[in-house]
Amino acid sequence: MNNRRDFLKLTSIAGAGLLAGCATRNASAGTGIKMHNRNYTQKFNMSGYAAPKLQTVRVGFIGVGNRGTSAVTRMSKIEGVEIKAICDLRPEKAQAAKRNIANTPHRPDLYTGGENEWKKMCERNDIDLVYIATPWNLHTPMAVFSMEHDKHAAVEVPAAETLEECWQLVETSEKTKKHCMMLENCCYDFFELLTLNMARQGFFGEIVHAEGAYLHDLLDENFSKTQYQGMWRLKDNYKSGNLYPTHGLGPVAQAMDINRGDKMDYLVSVSSNDFMMAAKANELAAKDDFYKEFAGKSFRGNMNVTTIRTSKGKTIMIQHDVTSPRPYSRLHTISGTKAIAQKYPLPARIATNHLNWVTPEEMKVLEERYQPAIVKKIGEMAKKVGGHGGMDFMMDWRLIDCLRNGLPLDMDVYDAATWSSIKPLSEISVANRSNSIDVPDFTGGSWKTNKQVDLTLSHLK
Amino acid sequence: MNNRRDFLKLTSIAGAGLLAGCATRNASAGTGIKMHNRNYTQKFNMSGYAAPKLQTVRVGFIGVGNRGTSAVTRMSKIEGVEIKAICDLRPEKAQAAKRNIANTPHRPDLYTGGENEWKKMCERNDIDLVYIATPWNLHTPMAVFSMEHDKHAAVEVPAAETLEECWQLVETSEKTKKHCMMLENCCYDFFELLTLNMARQGFFGEIVHAEGAYLHDLLDENFSKTQYQGMWRLKDNYKSGNLYPTHGLGPVAQAMDINRGDKMDYLVSVSSNDFMMAAKANELAAKDDFYKEFAGKSFRGNMNVTTIRTSKGKTIMIQHDVTSPRPYSRLHTISGTKAIAQKYPLPARIATNHLNWVTPEEMKVLEERYQPAIVKKIGEMAKKVGGHGGMDFMMDWRLIDCLRNGLPLDMDVYDAATWSSIKPLSEISVANRSNSIDVPDFTGGSWKTNKQVDLTLSHLK
Repeated sequence: MNNRRDFLKLTSIAGAGLLAGCATRNASAGTGIKMHNRNYTQKFNMSGYAAPKLQTVRVGFIGVGNRGTSAVTRMSKIEGVEIKAICDLRPEKAQAAKRNIANTPHRPDLYTGGENEWKKMCERNDIDLVYIATPWNLHTPMAVFSMEHDKHAAVEVPAAETLEECWQLVETSEKTKKHCMMLENCCYDFFELLTLNMARQGFFGEIVHAEGAYLHDLLDENFSKTQYQGMWRLKDNYKSGNLYPTHGLGPVAQAMDINRGDKMDYLVSVSSNDFMMAAKANELAAKDDFYKEFAGKSFRGNMNVTTIRTSKGKTIMIQHDVTSPRPYSRLHTISGTKAIAQKYPLPARIATNHLNWVTPEEMKVLEERYQPAIVKKIGEMAKKVGGHGGMDFMMDWRLIDCLRNGLPLDMDVYDAATWSSIKPLSEISVANRSNSIDVPDFTGGSWKTNKQVDLTLSHLK
Repeated sequence: MNNRRDFLKLTSIAGAGLLAGCATRNASAGTGIKMHNRNYTQKFNMSGYAAPKLQTVRVGFIGVGNRGTSAVTRMSKIEGVEIKAICDLRPEKAQAAKRNIANTPHRPDLYTGGENEWKKMCERNDIDLVYIATPWNLHTPMAVFSMEHDKHAAVEVPAAETLEECWQLVETSEKTKKHCMMLENCCYDFFELLTLNMARQGFFGEIVHAEGAYLHDLLDENFSKTQYQGMWRLKDNYKSGNLYPTHGLGPVAQAMDINRGDKMDYLVSVSSNDFMMAAKANELAAKDDFYKEFAGKSFRGNMNVTTIRTSKGKTIMIQHDVTSPRPYSRLHTISGTKAIAQKYPLPARIATNHLNWVTPEEMKVLEERYQPAIVKKIGEMAKKVGGHGGMDFMMDWRLIDCLRNGLPLDMDVYDAATWSSIKPLSEISVANRSNSIDVPDFTGGSWKTNKQVDLTLSHLK
């Protein structure tokens, strides 16, 4: 538990000065920042773990705001799901989510009003899966509590906000043998699934470099009085680093077999200053007292660039910018010894040489040849149901598919912890003049032998 | 001269181990790698310096391989230029370059055959400008020798390969009051000039982040027996870092007023392993003894990602990959508080909001409104003469324009040193687990007051 205490010490430190202090004690420029014991001994390997089959998956939801409400509706359409309960602090939200599925057989009980209603729901003994879509700071506490009460946990991104929370998820999942899946829906988008399958088939050769990003102008949303309960998302922007890494990182981490043959070794993170958020806060506060508490505050830099190096010597570049006026992008670049794919700027592109990208006709041929089984099976239905164009539904469907058929999940607790850890690690690097920091091996060494996710859906054949 | 000695010490160190040693002594994780005295005292400020007007610019060329030969032909078409001499180790190359301009009034003397013929050319007293397009390791020695012999120096990219060479250029230019311009032709490409002018006019608002790159599959060229005399360019790939940063960096550094209102503060650099070059070397060596010397060698990583932070808190991300099979790209991304421009992948794009890129029609309007004077004046002629689509000619024309009219150069010795320094700095960062390293202030503090380059060509009005 020595490493645990290290984390507690670290993650309880707020100021960059103190972090720098730690870093200085623990690092030399030649070795990078080492703040934790990387020799974690795994209690039980949850990678590739198949939980007992469930005939019906009985689901309870916590948090039915933007994301949770649509999740309830999607889940109501999936065979073998029974929606037992919906929990939200705000009664009207819980009632609305229930109303949305009034024309289905689902009759969920509502838990609402009190700060701890969600615990009562988790304590029921007729729920198999808790689906968590609450503000970020509640993700880990709720996932841990769910697993400790014998439930699988599906938790929105990011699964954890601190390194301590990342380790809590790993240790709890291993101890309880309950799944903890982070709901990284971008791993189920169509081009991401296509390139994952292409990577599997060796289309890219050896993948040398990949890129992911969350470039999404949320300046107005973050300052909206109604969008994020208690302005929690705006307040998160007081930190500096990559605050939201998983949408861009998840799909490329899967293509590069991170935690399943390779692992992240270290990263460096650089943030720009803030040129927009403080100005916006001050401007709004001048006209509206509601914003007074945000005036005069310093916010995270508008752009963060984080570069990760893996143990096999591959590079992953991840960007985060939620304020600049630029078209949405997750980059999704996969560059290998034989080919390259790049989704943004749209349209998605593929090339196998330096002369030109494939034509739309050639792209169609590749899409047919490399379309993964899940898209063939439910891609069309997913597009009809919707949810970011269908990826949300494919994610939910696959989660239920795995639980009902006793299959390992596509994304396990090690992925949740590793992908989420980029946020706190990038904050520490930024606070230490961008020096490199080791990425913890949450798999305790099992990355060397962990198997790749099954893309064939062979159980359905 | 204290800092000079520091550099000698450093740049003579080959092994990462020793570098790490230095770094450990000089750095803590909280402060980054500090290996040099940053308090350089400028002898004379060459930024904004106007050399005495020259009625005719008498030019001598050193190195007429790939780049030099076309430069001779371009220069022969520019008014007010007299080509006095051409020098190359290889007689046939010098003769061919002269033959190319046989139908012009130019009758250059040839210097060829001997290792030191170029010095004889530089010692002539009837040459004003030495135009250097030799292998990289000769750029600084030839530029320094030229300035010390009372000639302006125009030198191909990169102007310098080590920090020591960067300082030699700066100190020699200040001492001799001779210009040293690095021939960064990409600064004169059409979209780069357009976005530079847009940046000047405030179109992007405050520029927060920019990107540049050299993503150019040269795997076959680097292993060609004939392309680079003595295989010098292949051998350069034994180093690991960003070996060729200036094409992507130059244009965005100008747009961000680096050395003219802002400066680079520090950088971090991450290299992948090599997954292609050693394999290629071994494969060729198995069939052809010529390649035996390259077999079993370890080459630089295929991808390098370097992130620079400026003193005003802006970020610049620079990439280098000359082996992967992917379409050519220099990225050229400029992201500001009001708009974004991105040239690669082609076609070039501009957006002023997160919803969509401007239409081709809107792009035409912007091109007309923000077209800089140099393009209006000679853009059409440049396209006819060619040279990477015209940018080479615009660069040469502007160099001669400045020398004939006694104007400061668009790119001065501080730009040459700063942009070139990314190569050795990135090597040191890579060798030190990607920890951050300070970028020297080659302007000795004058960046705070140095004026922007004149884009108006007001002298021609």
